[in-house]
Amino acid sequence: MQTPPFEDQPCSVAQALGEIGERWTLLILREAFFGMQRFTDFQARLGVARNILTARLNKLVATGILTRNVAPGRGNPRFYRLTEKGRDVLPAFIALMQWGDRWIAGEAKAPVRVVDTATGEEIARLRVCARDGRPLVAREMRVVPGPGADVSIHRRFGATASGGEAPEAAFAFRRG
Amino acid sequence: MQTPPFEDQPCSVAQALGEIGERWTLLILREAFFGMQRFTDFQARLGVARNILTARLNKLVATGILTRNVAPGRGNPRFYRLTEKGRDVLPAFIALMQWGDRWIAGEAKAPVRVVDTATGEEIARLRVCARDGRPLVAREMRVVPGPGADVSIHRRFGATASGGEAPEAAFAFRRG
Repeated sequence: MQTPPFEDQPCSVAQALGEIGERWTLLILREAFFGMQRFTDFQARLGVARNILTARLNKLVATGILTRNVAPGRGNPRFYRLTEKGRDVLPAFIALMQWGDRWIAGEAKAPVRVVDTATGEEIARLRVCARDGRPLVAREMRVVPGPGADVSIHRRFGATASGGEAPEAAFAFRRG
Repeated sequence: MQTPPFEDQPCSVAQALGEIGERWTLLILREAFFGMQRFTDFQARLGVARNILTARLNKLVATGILTRNVAPGRGNPRFYRLTEKGRDVLPAFIALMQWGDRWIAGEAKAPVRVVDTATGEEIARLRVCARDGRPLVAREMRVVPGPGADVSIHRRFGATASGGEAPEAAFAFRRG
């Protein structure tokens, strides 16, 4: 279902989902993280329909997340490789994996573990931190208009006329 | 389009996307992070069609990400509040936001900034780290079967018969 206002939201999460939020796209990137490069490898690993895989790969190339190269010669396969933009999806990917491990599979049933090669220990859970490394909980953060804020964001998150803080600027986590 | 094998993937990212990967769901959670609790508030902030919002909220309640409470009395509004499972989506949300800021909007056009209330400084970029806090790049990590691994994962990521490392276990980031 197409809902046009979605991509128009002045929100980088909406924009990010517009590029990598479609069904299968993050799993295609998972396979790219593991070194898969060819259409046939993605297809065999994921079991996704060819027409969907083609559409997803074309979009990932168009948005600069993968590059597509063809070796010279007729009938040679195309190779898809991650760009820096593509490699930089990894923290979001790991954060989603850790959330799924914790809240859906359960830690005791996690399908895979990602380990630090140097120690063999599982990597740390991703946390939101301050610049100096202090972990932050939601109520220690707030939202302010960014350099690309539009009028609606300034109205919502900007300082009030009296210099006070916008009422919705704080992450307002309440008890469930 | 429904592609049944997707949810059957032994992958916590696929499972996570099954619960929070649908269009609008992460933006509904964004509004919940900002303290919105009522159907009419979500609807006004997002401009999403009522039937879609209803379906998404019902699913978020069914999966234990939001709770729904109704104040006693006829015609009273329902309140949706984040559970611990819902609040724990924040690192994945911030990781996606930072990726969108960096690679789509561009840092100079980020719509909002999330700041540490104590210092007013922007929060740090989420990084994948070892247990001792060392930041890890992809080639310093590898994948091993988890406690819930199935046969296909053991075959792919388990130690080889000769005790060697599975060839696909390393995050194989190549130059684009």
